[in-house]
Amino acid sequence: MNDTIVGFGRTIRKLRNEAGISQERFAAMCDLHRTYISDVELGKRNVSLENIQKMADALNTKISDVFLEVEKVESV
Amino acid sequence: MNDTIVGFGRTIRKLRNEAGISQERFAAMCDLHRTYISDVELGKRNVSLENIQKMADALNTKISDVFLEVEKVESV
Repeated sequence: MNDTIVGFGRTIRKLRNEAGISQERFAAMCDLHRTYISDVELGKRNVSLENIQKMADALNTKISDVFLEVEKVESV
Repeated sequence: MNDTIVGFGRTIRKLRNEAGISQERFAAMCDLHRTYISDVELGKRNVSLENIQKMADALNTKISDVFLEVEKVESV
């Protein structure tokens, strides 16, 4: 359970870094607070579907692709 | 945004029906309330990642597969 939340956070951080977007800019793109993004990336927030969609949109990807990445890491 | 929440609910209902699981039994499997499951299926709840994982587990599927199904419907 918690693994998914932690894995989701790590994946968001990875995809954000790969896209070369700062946490501050990413927060603005998602219309969310920077501290909230920081908490999500650290696996400290049980993020809602609406915010999952905002983050996927900002990363120009699909929710399914985000979770394929989460599950890839989980299965290692 | 809202489309994702509505699409998620419809997909959960579809997968649950295909698995031949009643809403009541599904709620028990997820350790959630039946009225909550009903609201999720109707697109009335901005479901959290923890509960998304519970529902995917109860349906014996992966979160990525649930969203591939959601996105398939969205793109029609």
